[in-house]
Amino acid sequence: MSSEDRLCLALDFGGTKLAAGLVNLDGGTLVTHVRAPTPVGGGAAGSLRTMFQLGDAALQGLAGRPLHGAGVSFGGPVDAATGTVLRSLHVAGWDQVPLASLVSGHFGVVARMDNDANAAALGEWRFGVGRGSRCMAYYTLSTGVGGGIILGGTLFHGATGVAGELGHVIVDRNGPPCPCGNRGCVEALCSGPAIARRAREAVAQSSLPTLLRDVGGGEASFTAATVAAAASQGDAVALAVWREVADDLAVGMGNVVNVLNLDRIVIGGGVAQAGTLLLEPLRAALPRYVFPAAYEPLDVRLSCFGGTSGLYGAAALLL
Amino acid sequence: MSSEDRLCLALDFGGTKLAAGLVNLDGGTLVTHVRAPTPVGGGAAGSLRTMFQLGDAALQGLAGRPLHGAGVSFGGPVDAATGTVLRSLHVAGWDQVPLASLVSGHFGVVARMDNDANAAALGEWRFGVGRGSRCMAYYTLSTGVGGGIILGGTLFHGATGVAGELGHVIVDRNGPPCPCGNRGCVEALCSGPAIARRAREAVAQSSLPTLLRDVGGGEASFTAATVAAAASQGDAVALAVWREVADDLAVGMGNVVNVLNLDRIVIGGGVAQAGTLLLEPLRAALPRYVFPAAYEPLDVRLSCFGGTSGLYGAAALLL
Repeated sequence: MSSEDRLCLALDFGGTKLAAGLVNLDGGTLVTHVRAPTPVGGGAAGSLRTMFQLGDAALQGLAGRPLHGAGVSFGGPVDAATGTVLRSLHVAGWDQVPLASLVSGHFGVVARMDNDANAAALGEWRFGVGRGSRCMAYYTLSTGVGGGIILGGTLFHGATGVAGELGHVIVDRNGPPCPCGNRGCVEALCSGPAIARRAREAVAQSSLPTLLRDVGGGEASFTAATVAAAASQGDAVALAVWREVADDLAVGMGNVVNVLNLDRIVIGGGVAQAGTLLLEPLRAALPRYVFPAAYEPLDVRLSCFGGTSGLYGAAALLL
Repeated sequence: MSSEDRLCLALDFGGTKLAAGLVNLDGGTLVTHVRAPTPVGGGAAGSLRTMFQLGDAALQGLAGRPLHGAGVSFGGPVDAATGTVLRSLHVAGWDQVPLASLVSGHFGVVARMDNDANAAALGEWRFGVGRGSRCMAYYTLSTGVGGGIILGGTLFHGATGVAGELGHVIVDRNGPPCPCGNRGCVEALCSGPAIARRAREAVAQSSLPTLLRDVGGGEASFTAATVAAAASQGDAVALAVWREVADDLAVGMGNVVNVLNLDRIVIGGGVAQAGTLLLEPLRAALPRYVFPAAYEPLDVRLSCFGGTSGLYGAAALLL
C-alpha cells in the first residue's frame, strides 16, 4: 500500500450477517474486516449499534491514516439518491431510515449507500472480474436472485431507482411459481431453494442410483451445496440438475443480453460456489439463446470475492 | 414555421418502400414527404438512385431555405458510429455500404444513420409520444418485432452496437418456434404473422361462430389486420386472440421493465394499427408481470406517426 492510497470504511448490512471492513480504494484491496450475526430481534437500532461497533473495530486498521469516506451496502430496497433505507424484509424498524446520514454522523465522513446487488455489481466492475467491461450485469444467486447493471462505468438505476431485477425475468411463463407471485422467473428456477427443489423432484422421478439419496436429513435438507457436492463426485442425477439450472439461467441471461448487448456477466452469491458445475453448462448454453452478434463480445465469469463482495461493493460507491 | 427553424432531409430505406421527407427539427413537423416502392430487383444501387430522386423532390419544399443535414433510417443491421450498412435482408448489394457518406456526398450536408427501430425510437422520444420520458423502449410490431432503447435522452447501443433486440426476449421457452431459431420469443408470439397463425389455430380449435371463417381467401389469407377487423366487430374468437397476444407481449415487456425500470413504452409498426384491441388488454396485463415499484412510473402508448415514423426517426438522428 502506498502512503497516498485512500482508505474507506465499507459496511455491509445483510439479512443474516453484518460486516465492516477497511478498503484501499486505490489498491483495490480489503485491508481488514470483521463480522457478526445480524441481531434479528434487535430491530434496526440493534443492527445499527452492532454495525457501529464493527466499524469502530475495523477503523483500528487505519493506524493513524485519514479516512476517505464510508460506503454502505444494504440488503433491501433503498433510495440511493438520498441514502435512505425504504424497508428491510428481514429486520423490523428499517422503514425510511436515513442510513447514509446516520453513518456519516457516527464516523464523521461522507457516506454513500445502495442496495446490496447494485453495490456488489459496482464492486465487481471497479475491483473484481467486471473490470474493463462497458456494459455489465451482475447476478447474485442466493436465497433469491438479485442483480445490478453497470452501463458506461456507472450503476444504472432506471427511471425511478428500481432497475436491475434480473431474477424476475420470466423464462417460462408456465414454469414453477416464484416468490414474487409470477411463474418461471429466473429466481423460481435458479435460486438456491429452486435448485434444492429441482433436486428433490429429480430424485423422486429418477430410478438411477444417486448420492442424493444418502444425504443426511433426507430430501428436506437438500441445498444447492448438497447438490453441488454430489455433482462434483460425478453423480449423474445431480449433474443433470445443474445442467437444467444452467440452461434456464442461460435463457434468462440471453433475454438481458439480447436487449442490452452486454460484454460481461458476473455471477456471485452462494450458488456461484458451485463453480464450473454451473459455469461450464451455462457457457455452453448461452450461444443457443443469444444472437450471434450479441454473443460475440460476451464474457461470463464467476465472482472472486466470495463472502466479501458486499464490502468491495460498498467501497466502490465512493468512486 | 419560424424562419429560424432548422429543416433537414429525412430518408427511410425500408424493405418494401423508400420514403424521403423534409422535417422541421425545431417545430417537430413533417413538412413534406414522397415515397416509392423499393426497386427490389435493382439491388442497393437501384434503391440508392430512387432514393436520391425522392430526396431531390422533397428538397423542393425548402423553397430557398438552407438544409441543416440529412438523417437516414435503414431497415437492416448498420454500424451507426461509422454510418455503414452491414447488410440488408431484403435487397442485394448492401454489404458494407458507407451509406451516410454517400448521402452526405449527394446532398452536400452532414448525414447521420441508424437502423429503423433505433431511429424510430429516437423519433418518438424527440417528436412523438415518447417525449419527456427518462427510460423508454420502442417496439415495432410488424412482420418481425424490432426495438430501440432510449436512456437519458440518447439511443442505447450496448457494448458493440447491437442492443435493443426486444423481439427476441423469450417469454415461454417451450413456445412456438421463432424465425431466429429459438422458441417462444416475443416475435414468435406477437408479430403480424404470429397473430395470423394464432387466429388460424383458434379457428381450427373453436366451435364458436366466428367472422374469421368468412374471410375472403380463407385462413391462408389471415393477417393481423383481418383479425383486428373481426375483433372490432365484437367477434369473440378474434378478441380472444388479441387478449392472448397482448398477454404474451406483456410478459416480454415485463421482462424488460423489471430490468430497466422504464417509464415509457411506445408501440409502432403495422400491428399497432389494432389500437385499443391491443392496448387495452396489454395495459390490463402488465401489472401482473411487472413489480409494483417498476409498474408505478410506466406509461404505455401507441405511436401517432403511422407510416412516417421512419422519417421522424431519421430526422431525430441529427439532434
